[in-house]
Parts: sequence; C-alpha cells; structure tokens
Amino acid sequence: MQVMGFERVLGGVCAPQGFLAAGVSCGIKEDSRPDLALIFSERPAFAAGVFTTNALRAAPVELTSERVVKRLVRAVVVNSGNANAMTGERGAEDALAMTAQAEELLSVPRGQVLVASTGPIGEYLPMERVRSGIEQVVADLSPGGNTDAAKAIITTDSYAKELALEMEIDGRTVRMGAMAKGSGMMHPHLATMIVVITTDVFLDPDLMQTWLEQAVEWSFNRISVDGDQSTNDMVLMLANGAAMEDGYQMSREESELFFGALCWLTANLAMALVKDGEGSSKLLRIVVNGARDDGEAVTIARSIANSNLVKCAFYGGMPAWGRVAAAAGNAGVDLDVGKVDILLGDLPVATCGEPCEYDVMEIESYLKREEVEITMNLGLGDGSAYFLTTDLTREYVELNSSSKT
Amino acid sequence: MQVMGFERVLGGVCAPQGFLAAGVSCGIKEDSRPDLALIFSERPAFAAGVFTTNALRAAPVELTSERVVKRLVRAVVVNSGNANAMTGERGAEDALAMTAQAEELLSVPRGQVLVASTGPIGEYLPMERVRSGIEQVVADLSPGGNTDAAKAIITTDSYAKELALEMEIDGRTVRMGAMAKGSGMMHPHLATMIVVITTDVFLDPDLMQTWLEQAVEWSFNRISVDGDQSTNDMVLMLANGAAMEDGYQMSREESELFFGALCWLTANLAMALVKDGEGSSKLLRIVVNGARDDGEAVTIARSIANSNLVKCAFYGGMPAWGRVAAAAGNAGVDLDVGKVDILLGDLPVATCGEPCEYDVMEIESYLKREEVEITMNLGLGDGSAYFLTTDLTREYVELNSSSKT
Repeated sequence: MQVMGFERVLGGVCAPQGFLAAGVSCGIKEDSRPDLALIFSERPAFAAGVFTTNALRAAPVELTSERVVKRLVRAVVVNSGNANAMTGERGAEDALAMTAQAEELLSVPRGQVLVASTGPIGEYLPMERVRSGIEQVVADLSPGGNTDAAKAIITTDSYAKELALEMEIDGRTVRMGAMAKGSGMMHPHLATMIVVITTDVFLDPDLMQTWLEQAVEWSFNRISVDGDQSTNDMVLMLANGAAMEDGYQMSREESELFFGALCWLTANLAMALVKDGEGSSKLLRIVVNGARDDGEAVTIARSIANSNLVKCAFYGGMPAWGRVAAAAGNAGVDLDVGKVDILLGDLPVATCGEPCEYDVMEIESYLKREEVEITMNLGLGDGSAYFLTTDLTREYVELNSSSKT
Repeated sequence: MQVMGFERVLGGVCAPQGFLAAGVSCGIKEDSRPDLALIFSERPAFAAGVFTTNALRAAPVELTSERVVKRLVRAVVVNSGNANAMTGERGAEDALAMTAQAEELLSVPRGQVLVASTGPIGEYLPMERVRSGIEQVVADLSPGGNTDAAKAIITTDSYAKELALEMEIDGRTVRMGAMAKGSGMMHPHLATMIVVITTDVFLDPDLMQTWLEQAVEWSFNRISVDGDQSTNDMVLMLANGAAMEDGYQMSREESELFFGALCWLTANLAMALVKDGEGSSKLLRIVVNGARDDGEAVTIARSIANSNLVKCAFYGGMPAWGRVAAAAGNAGVDLDVGKVDILLGDLPVATCGEPCEYDVMEIESYLKREEVEITMNLGLGDGSAYFLTTDLTREYVELNSSSKT
C-alpha cells in the first residue's frame, strides 16, 4: 500500500532496524494471558513521551516522564494486569526495581530503561512474578518478538494492535513501527492507553518531542470511549538512528514526509483503538467546522463526543440532532444559533439553526451504518476539528458494571 | 413537620397568598397528557431567574431572561411537549405570541408574562393548539390549580413535584411554594429542568436574585443525571408581597430564616429530581472534603459524578474506588496523591493514596443500598462540596436509545 510516499510493512515495533522485542506471561494477570513486554534497542535511542494529564499519575508515569527528557534510552518494559497506581512509596520502588532489573540484565547504564503499566488501580505489583517475568522476557528478546510484545500489553482490547511504515530518507530505507493498547475501560478498575513507537531514523530529541506532541494531539487526543483519561496513559517514541548517519538533519521535504507518516500512523492507531472500544456498536466521527479557531472547534467536538445522550441516540439510530446541538451549546463556547447547520453524513437535518426537510428513510438507512459522521457547521470562522467516539450501548454498561467479566 | 423555623404545608405554587394556577391538555404532546400550565399572581410580583448556560438558548429562555430583570411580573406560562428551541425567528415570534395572548386574556400590561418551554428540540410549536390551550388555562385558573399546573410541565418525570413551606416573618404567616420538573433526558430529544417558586413575602428584586442564584448553586447546580445542561433550563421566582406590608425590610434573623427555607426547598426539589432520573437504580452522593477551596471541591465532585465508569461501577455494586480516584484526577485540579483518602459510606477503602484493608462483605452490603455516599478527602485545605447523581444502568441506555419509549 503506497500512501503519500510511505508504505505499510510488517514487523510492528521491530520493523525499524536495531529493535528487538518479546512478550511473556508471568502471572500478573489472573488468567494465563501474556502480561509483560520488553522492547530493546541495540543502540542508544533518543526518546520522546506524552503522558496523562490525570492529577493522580501512576508510579511508572512519574518515573518514565522524568527519564524521557533528552536522555538516551535503551529499552521499555511494559506490564499489563496491574496499573501500579495509587500504590504510594511501595509502588514507586516497584517501578524503579523493574527498570533496575532490566538495566542489569541488559547490561545498559542505570536510568536507560523506561517502564509503563496498565491494569487495575490500587493493587501492589506481585514483584516476585514480575522479577521472574523480566528474566524471561530479556531472554526471549528477538527481532520477531513484536507481536508477542503487542499481545502482552493488552488488557481489554479484542486484538493486539501493531502498525509499521517504510519510506526513503536521504536515499536510505527507514522505518517506523508501533504497538498500542486501548483506552476502553473495564471491570474492575480502569484500563489505559499505552503506545510505543520505534524508528531507525536519527531524530533530534527536541524535534521528536514536538512532533510527537502534535501527532498525539491530532490522533489520541481526538478519541474518547469514556471521556476519562487514566492514571497511566503514555505514548512513547524511541529513535535509534540505526538506518542513518548519526546527526543527519532531514531536509524540509524529508521532515514533511516523516512527520506526515508519523501522523498517519498515530491517526490509524487511534481509530483502531476507538473501533475496538468496549461494548460499542458504532464509530461516531464528529466534525466541527466554522469555529472561531481550531481550539474552539475541538472543545465543541469533544463536548458532543462525550454526551451520553448523543452516544445513546446514535446507538439507537435516531437522527437526534437536537441532542447534538444541545451538547455543542454546553461546551462553554459562544455560538450564534442562527448560523448553525447540522448534517448526518452528507444530509442536512438543520440549517441556520432551524429544522429542515429531510428524507427520513434515507437518514435512517444512513444511521444503520457502522461508521456515522455528524457534522456541525458554526459559521463563525475557519476553525475546524474532528473527534472520534463510540456509541453508548447496553453492552458497555454490562461490561462496566458486572464484577465477573 | 417543623424544620428550622419553617414548616411544610400543602398547596405547591398556590400555597402563598394571591397565586392562582391551572394546567390543561391542549395537544402539544402526542398523547393526551397535560401540556400547558399557568401561574398567575393577583398582585404584581417581583421576579428573579436563573437560566441555562447552554450557548444555544431556546426562544422562551431569551424572552424570559430579558423580562425578568427588575421588572414586575404577573404570570408564567409553561408548555411541555415542545422546547421551542432551534426554531429561529418563528420560534421567537411564537414565544412572544404566547405571552401576548396571556397578557391580553389576563388584562395585564404588556411584558408582564414570562414563558418557559420543555420538550423536543427543533420542532415548531403547534400554535393553533397552544392558543386554544392558553384560552382554556386562563379560564381554569384557581387557588387549587397547583397540582394541575405541576402535572402539565412534566415530560419524563414519573410524578409531579411540588413543595411548599410556611414560616413567620414580621409576626405574619408567610409562605413559599414551588413546582419542578426533571432534568432526565429521553427520546427523542432533550428534556429540561424547569422550576417555578412563588412567595407572598415582599422581596427586593436584587436581593431575591442574589438569594436565588446562591440557592440554585447549592442545589440544582449540584445535581446531574447526564452531565448535560439543556437549551431550556430555567428557575424562576416570583414574590408578590401579598402577606406583608409593601417594602418591608426583613431583619437579619428573618432574612436567615427565609434564605434557609429557600435553600431547603431547592435542595429538596433537586434531590427529588435526581432520584426520579431516567432509568436510574441508585442515588450517588459524592462528597469532596479537604480541597484548596469550595470551587475546586465542586469541580472534582462534578468530575466524579459525571464519570460513566464510576456510574456503571456503582450500578454493579462494585467498590471501584480506583475509578473514583481516576475521575477525580481528571478534573484538571492539582492533587497530592499521598494525601487522598476514599470512603464508601463510613468505610475507608483507600488511605494516603494507597489501598487499605476493608471488610468486603460489609462494603458489598453497603453498596446494595439505594443511596450510596462516596467521600474523597484530599488533605489540601478546607474546601468541600457535594454533588448528587445517579448510576448508569442498562435501562438508561434503553430509554435513551429506543425511538418508541
């Protein structure tokens, strides 16, 4: 598949040169599903990271966010089955111990391993199991371990999510790979979005941080299943430069290509996460145009996407544009009701703030689709934004309220 | 029932002297349920009002919010079955026509009738029916019409909500009465909270506005079923002074008594609205203590109350305090995780940001109650707040997604 100068390849986080990975089951999860992943770069890599804005950040988030700043990194260890959140001093020590053990076994300098965790909040890690898991996962590292790693980080996702791209920069073939786990929430606690992106391009760490933040803003920050951000959300990127000369500065065209590829990768992963949202039956794409600026457009799109009434209405296939309007009006942004148009797909249902005639059969048939687009034109300026969410279903409530799922 | 110097009486909005009311069915609703209410004061009354902050305010909200400012008012006409929202110029004319007709039939000066509407968004009012309804409701006005009026304003409430209080001020018996309809949401559009409070006390309009705003802040602004504020929400208060000398200035004690009674009335109506929330099985009372100030406490309590994960968890009777913590952390307020305690009822489940031992049977038995209190102590200061909400149930989704409820 050729997409704007880059091409999709296999291999996930191991697609770029010099990255090994592994995933094992060590008993953190109650069932025997894999629960510990390791990604290792054979060369020192620069790292960038975007972290949850939740005020109650988990121990691994605290540790990794400190380490990611302009430091060389060699590996990322990720466990599922336990968030190591709300675990106090002991949790901080456990997170540090996980990195220290990996550093020792991998023979890399102290402080060069990052850690991420996902799973229930408020439980201490079973460190004996974790320790034996880290031994095993280091021993298992291989250039083909990407899918095992991707499987070991999921909690409620129905499948492991990987993606990798290839492109030409400076006449060389370079790659970017990623694994991701979903933000859907489930009993008995709270799950987390974790994404790890690898590349064999050389990237200045400041530039990488800027690009990653922008790519996250346009992808993972535009999706919502619950509207909640977890204590553990983390997007990491490692660039080891294995495919290029050290210190190579990309041309403007190359930068655009690489950044475009990064945005494509994150946007596609984000969509995969939403589509796999717990108990959902539909993907809702909210588009807001004509806001005063993009920021106001995002605020309004998010308000619509997080409205239970909107999410229930589209679950039921109802053309409830009044709920869309009311949710938009709730965003705290000043609107001019007389300029508001609302469309479902391409079909206008309200124009200039008033109902308009539409073909009920046509709308109802459109709303039966698995992907529904809701567009709101505000007529106030050039700002626009999109937001992806899911519908709110009986199954969602079922999953999130039963103690035996 | 004697409560802090005031006593509960019957009579709803007609309990205070000089107020008449009526409610009729005129065919705005598709079934034959009552849909038009009128409250009339035999003497000119001062009015105060608090209105939705939704940016897409309905036509009646625009008109009534203009009229309520320091103006004398004689009546309030309320229709259910149609919100007259997103209806443009025609909607504005219809709202004005409703008041003009009532003013003429009641022989009161232009501009002295207020109007409120609730029901589906984006449909024009059937004005022929409304006109015949206004004729009928004016003809039906009586001192015993309060319950008919209360019934005519409900949409999805399961019963009409009325409350009235009596107290002594300046040696005279004075009264305060109210009717309210719920904020629960239902197919096919959006419902609304409408509250009308009457009193025969003389009240300076500025003071009444200040008191009403504070009472609303402590009651209706602390409840949430969906987290959405409608295009039509409105709380009105009319004081006609019929029981007192004109211009009487209450003493400090009398002011405290009256304001306390107002707060008791609004808090009790607010709780009745939440308890009657669509498809809910439990009342959740969120208490936040130890915030830096009350404002931060409200923000955090609201964030917990609006979390679908929290609402699902308590529907399922799960002691998911991790979800409570995560929702609190999402409020955009800086927290110190090591100082956070969480209690379910009186039972601590987390202390100093870490899990604590608790009796699972005791917690599970507590969580089966119809009213559950979740307390979060932040250890940062003296700020505190409460917020009332409902659980998120399969029935809620059912009601809000099916087109034939």
